[in-house]
Amino acid sequence: MASRPSQQASLEWLSREYHDLNGSHIDVLENPPTALEFARIVHISRPVLIRGFKIPASTSKWSNDYLINKMGSLPVSVAVTPNGRADAVTPGLDGKLFFAEPAVETMTMKFLLDNLSDDDAHAETFYLQSQNGNVYSSRFFQGQDDPSEFAPLRQDIPSDVKWCTEALDRAPEAVNLWIGNGKSVSSIHSDPFENIYHVVRGTKYFTLLPPMDGFWLDERLYPHATYVRNGKGGDLTLQPSSDTPSVRWASISDHLSRRLPQEAHPIHLSVGVGETLYLPPGWFHEVRQAECGITIALNWWYDTCMQGHSWVLLSYLRAIKDVPLGNAEDDSDETMY
Amino acid sequence: MASRPSQQASLEWLSREYHDLNGSHIDVLENPPTALEFARIVHISRPVLIRGFKIPASTSKWSNDYLINKMGSLPVSVAVTPNGRADAVTPGLDGKLFFAEPAVETMTMKFLLDNLSDDDAHAETFYLQSQNGNVYSSRFFQGQDDPSEFAPLRQDIPSDVKWCTEALDRAPEAVNLWIGNGKSVSSIHSDPFENIYHVVRGTKYFTLLPPMDGFWLDERLYPHATYVRNGKGGDLTLQPSSDTPSVRWASISDHLSRRLPQEAHPIHLSVGVGETLYLPPGWFHEVRQAECGITIALNWWYDTCMQGHSWVLLSYLRAIKDVPLGNAEDDSDETMY
Repeated sequence: MASRPSQQASLEWLSREYHDLNGSHIDVLENPPTALEFARIVHISRPVLIRGFKIPASTSKWSNDYLINKMGSLPVSVAVTPNGRADAVTPGLDGKLFFAEPAVETMTMKFLLDNLSDDDAHAETFYLQSQNGNVYSSRFFQGQDDPSEFAPLRQDIPSDVKWCTEALDRAPEAVNLWIGNGKSVSSIHSDPFENIYHVVRGTKYFTLLPPMDGFWLDERLYPHATYVRNGKGGDLTLQPSSDTPSVRWASISDHLSRRLPQEAHPIHLSVGVGETLYLPPGWFHEVRQAECGITIALNWWYDTCMQGHSWVLLSYLRAIKDVPLGNAEDDSDETMY
Repeated sequence: MASRPSQQASLEWLSREYHDLNGSHIDVLENPPTALEFARIVHISRPVLIRGFKIPASTSKWSNDYLINKMGSLPVSVAVTPNGRADAVTPGLDGKLFFAEPAVETMTMKFLLDNLSDDDAHAETFYLQSQNGNVYSSRFFQGQDDPSEFAPLRQDIPSDVKWCTEALDRAPEAVNLWIGNGKSVSSIHSDPFENIYHVVRGTKYFTLLPPMDGFWLDERLYPHATYVRNGKGGDLTLQPSSDTPSVRWASISDHLSRRLPQEAHPIHLSVGVGETLYLPPGWFHEVRQAECGITIALNWWYDTCMQGHSWVLLSYLRAIKDVPLGNAEDDSDETMY
């Protein structure tokens, strides 16, 4: 579909109407919901902060010593960037903007935690964010062999969230461990998953936007690039990819809060130790971490139901608007998507 | 919002995408769902045919004799039309189209059932369809006095549907009794309610359209009118209303199946004795009844959740398009809505 002023008007109408009906309130539950209560929450498809969801992985158990001892010399895959902006829009050497994926390097848990505890502002930024089902992948739930770098930690991490599994009537698609510090920021994006996000240590700071506000992010298409290490001990440089398609990403993700127009309705939410965020599919989120110390989180991704209204609406919000190129001076007539 | 070709394109996109993802299949449950199963069904928001939902009002118990005996000489409000089209677009004496409400006359249950059993094709059409919570209204659920013409039948009619009440976490808004025959047709329309529709006797034939297909019905605005009896024993004539707003209604509701464009995806479903239809909010439905004999049904309407995606999407589908006048020769520039 072509991008016409009347479609912009439709998107603005949806954004306003959604906000008028739903406001910016986030419900807080003092205890985990029952499966039935959670099924009602999934239908409403708004974030909810849940307290009292207890798992063996906890801030009291998961000290650095405990994690280092458990993991020993096993290699752990860690995202490395010069600036803490993995999976983000970043200028390359020529000033052109790219969607930059991090370098991925393996190290021991001790090396990772030592780096994250070090406040050398000039050092590279490490973030354990492999997000490929690094604790349990879909293979696990299909009864297949499912090797994990974090096998020694599985005993502390339930493979699923019972009340979510029962409400959705399906197993998770991926369970991930995240370990980082205040130098890493996940730039605003949305995922097509039901997401249960639990903070084990530290604090996560979310900036949330409902799917209906996504068009205020002015998504554009950016060529793909990856940080590459110039020899052992060398610098990281951004290397454009030759065979990876362009990536659709928010063009205003840098300094998001300042650049979001007044008509958008961001929700700011901190998720602290032992707290759990339900983040519905299609909700845009920027995630920051506590300035001091290490933040550790776990998340369970479940596939979204593609039947019914929600998925069609999410598709519509994505499909209605042409996505301009991120680098063209005047790209109003040059679209690739 | 003005009606522009690009908005028509958006609506067509939504209709196609919804059909591609959801098809025209209707699930059939051999037993009523649990509350949790029904919560999942509500989230998907597609009709489901449910068998095995047993209530005291049943075809074996509710013979004509039983109903006549229970109701005795109590007055019952019945919709009367010359043609069986209550709440439908109908030409007046001058050929102008109106949204016609029926005359409402009171009679005994015996008089109603005798009329419905009589196959005199020239007789007026009676349909007990008062649909104002004629068995239980919201007053009942608020603990207030709730007089009903059908109080003697309440013992056979549960005030709520347990698995629906528990799934939605709310009491019904209205419970209605419907008694008619093959001469009455409910012209296609949608209601903003979760609807549990149970057939006690006879068969209901539903033609269903998802909310995304509503714009194929070419809704227009019709002036309001009511059938009025010209003196006791006189004819019914359609009397235009002076103070009732125009009504938005499908302009192709007559001979619907023939007039629906190929791009729409109607679902034809018969609901027989003891069967129950879950009809989600916003789904368009035309309802016919078995040609022979009397059809009796009960329905429980529950308010829809206005939080989340569904309500916004339903509002959008209604709001995006201007509604032309039903009677103008060329009404492309004359809109009232």
